[in-house]
Amino acid sequence: MPILGENVNLLDIARRRKTTRSFKKGEIPPLNDILEAIEVALEAPSGLNCQPWYFLIVSDSKIKKKIRKFCEHEERLFHEMAPDFFKEWLKKRKITWKKKFLTDAPYLILVFSDMKCPYAIQSTWLSIGYLLLALEDKELSSLTYTPPNTSRLRNILGIDRRYSLQTIIPVGYPKKEKMKEERKKIEEKVYFNKWGKSISSILDRYKHRLA
Amino acid sequence: MPILGENVNLLDIARRRKTTRSFKKGEIPPLNDILEAIEVALEAPSGLNCQPWYFLIVSDSKIKKKIRKFCEHEERLFHEMAPDFFKEWLKKRKITWKKKFLTDAPYLILVFSDMKCPYAIQSTWLSIGYLLLALEDKELSSLTYTPPNTSRLRNILGIDRRYSLQTIIPVGYPKKEKMKEERKKIEEKVYFNKWGKSISSILDRYKHRLA
Repeated sequence: MPILGENVNLLDIARRRKTTRSFKKGEIPPLNDILEAIEVALEAPSGLNCQPWYFLIVSDSKIKKKIRKFCEHEERLFHEMAPDFFKEWLKKRKITWKKKFLTDAPYLILVFSDMKCPYAIQSTWLSIGYLLLALEDKELSSLTYTPPNTSRLRNILGIDRRYSLQTIIPVGYPKKEKMKEERKKIEEKVYFNKWGKSISSILDRYKHRLA
Repeated sequence: MPILGENVNLLDIARRRKTTRSFKKGEIPPLNDILEAIEVALEAPSGLNCQPWYFLIVSDSKIKKKIRKFCEHEERLFHEMAPDFFKEWLKKRKITWKKKFLTDAPYLILVFSDMKCPYAIQSTWLSIGYLLLALEDKELSSLTYTPPNTSRLRNILGIDRRYSLQTIIPVGYPKKEKMKEERKKIEEKVYFNKWGKSISSILDRYKHRLA
């Protein structure tokens, strides 16, 4: 349902891109594709151009197992204590404390922020935006998975506390095709000149122009 | 200096995209281009698919003036108190407390986060990553400008504190062509299997394969 543009390549990529939680274990994408996607992420802007991001690519199955073991332990504790609405949400999506994708995905990209940089977290997530689109462009599936207690995982991996683990991005080819979670309509998320003032009237005008 | 890929469209867009601080005042891009770029941003993933982002497009010159006045007042205070290294950085780039771009740019996109959503800030900045690439794809220049005291500005604009102002993105056509700030090399930002283990050896191997 393209509201506005047609033939917008970037919009196609963004629309196609969806979270994948199950990966083909055996099928390994070329490492080169991962590196090329990260190259895109490295072009992102950042506060004071400090470039706070670091990308640790993990393909070693022993390290992946170690990460999975830690995450599942933390997830179990977390799931037990989760508020009801969240338990519901997880159940509906069949998400449990098990994180098979952490060992099934051929690559994990651990993304870190140098906390000495201004706007470190904001800039890093902006670059993650670049990265996800670039991975999709390579027809690679991905997921941003942030385990509970990222600082402990960082410590276990022997990384200085200056670098904060922001997320783990498992990357590979999808096993099951899943629907993309629905997105809100542009009218609900974009206001014009005044908070709460819908762009519907403008949209109509522009749709007309496009027709 | 493309290290790896050739003909990667997304990489081209990301490389081309640079921060612009001076805009052509008279030349107004079609609002449709802005909306199409935001459509891309709306496709980003988010914690619990909560879609915490809101985009307030401001083209009204009275509101832009009001925003500029507030920001310049805050910037002045901020610049006076800034640490020396930061003053140096600003001076080198000829950045003062004056924020002409807030009234020169035909559009300001104010980006807000619904703080009731999990990972609200992270998800919002991820979508800003999508947005910047999409604006560049439309050949629109942009800048992520975060003024000091965003919460006061949010109050002045009469917006509920539930929504946190993350950044202001002036958008338009550039007046002066400026060099892109240099980016670190991939070897400095990407590690393989172990923190600090450079990918240089792999890069060599892959460069070879590509040749």
